[in-house]
Amino acid sequence: MTKASSPAPQARGPSDHEVRHQIVEAATEYFGLYGFDKTTVSDLAKAIGFSKAYIYKFFDSKQAIGEVICGNRLSQIMVAVDEAVADARSAPERLRRMFRALVEAGSQLFFQDSKLYDIARTSASESWPSARAYEAHVKDLIVQVLREGREAGDFERKTPLDETANAIYLVMRPYTNPLLLQHNLENAAEATLQLTNLILRSLAP
Amino acid sequence: MTKASSPAPQARGPSDHEVRHQIVEAATEYFGLYGFDKTTVSDLAKAIGFSKAYIYKFFDSKQAIGEVICGNRLSQIMVAVDEAVADARSAPERLRRMFRALVEAGSQLFFQDSKLYDIARTSASESWPSARAYEAHVKDLIVQVLREGREAGDFERKTPLDETANAIYLVMRPYTNPLLLQHNLENAAEATLQLTNLILRSLAP
Repeated sequence: MTKASSPAPQARGPSDHEVRHQIVEAATEYFGLYGFDKTTVSDLAKAIGFSKAYIYKFFDSKQAIGEVICGNRLSQIMVAVDEAVADARSAPERLRRMFRALVEAGSQLFFQDSKLYDIARTSASESWPSARAYEAHVKDLIVQVLREGREAGDFERKTPLDETANAIYLVMRPYTNPLLLQHNLENAAEATLQLTNLILRSLAP
Repeated sequence: MTKASSPAPQARGPSDHEVRHQIVEAATEYFGLYGFDKTTVSDLAKAIGFSKAYIYKFFDSKQAIGEVICGNRLSQIMVAVDEAVADARSAPERLRRMFRALVEAGSQLFFQDSKLYDIARTSASESWPSARAYEAHVKDLIVQVLREGREAGDFERKTPLDETANAIYLVMRPYTNPLLLQHNLENAAEATLQLTNLILRSLAP
């Protein structure tokens, strides 16, 4: 937010930050209704009553807008997952809740906000920063749970932590990555329960 | 092959079986070059010098031809996997070889016969009989390995066999289902090695 560098002469207008926020809000609604891949910045501009040039003052590209929308939505999911695991009383319980919350949030996005899900899928497919941050957050959560469980004596400690964490991430990935989740929604609740059981058996000390 | 029901008057021509085989061979080559989804039975007929009506005497639809092609290719993979595991000296070793052979065969199909991979993907997406037979074969192999490992004392026996088998199938599925494999080819060899290790830890008695 380097306002000093803004060339805008009209000092009383909304701040850059406010305009960006306004564009993102409107774009979230617009892309949520009409999809992301098949619409253009011109369509968006027309729909929200801004000029295309004005939008381009704040965002370099349609992807840059999609990236903010996607980042916001994935942040919401991460907050929901963090809350779901916060008061778990043991590492195994935390792992169970984590996997369940990830799958529930992803399924909800798919079924209730399918057009925004499309953005998340594009983000995963093209490895946008928002998708990479989400992946990193999931991996961090796994490492935290593993450390906690190893310290408490709930999990084995022979396997290198990195390998265990990555293998668990790979087991969860079909249900957390939007490119894959769409093919795994059938019986996802039962599947993830069985996979959690398998993971926990693999962690037995 | 109910030849008696064939209305063809010219008794000296090739048998129905031979014609079907000839069409499948030609179609495998044709779809292998030009793809399955975007070509029609008319295109195929023109290319192989048969009339469309003649092809329809032997196959109800393009899918019926694709189904035979796909079934043949998946059978080849199953034979390769069966051979890879045949002389394994223990259940854990058999499981390792099985997962590795499945991923190698799938990757080979993807990289070397990408147009035929497309047929396999369609088959998986639309749950054709060939895809279901392949899935069933993979599940059978897993159950066999588990039985063997349990009898030899290599694997734990507390978890119901069905649950263990299904959970292992779910871990392998992203690397065996053509719809999913395409998104999991990066580092597939290392990923499946780590997943095999995780599965084997989960099976420890």
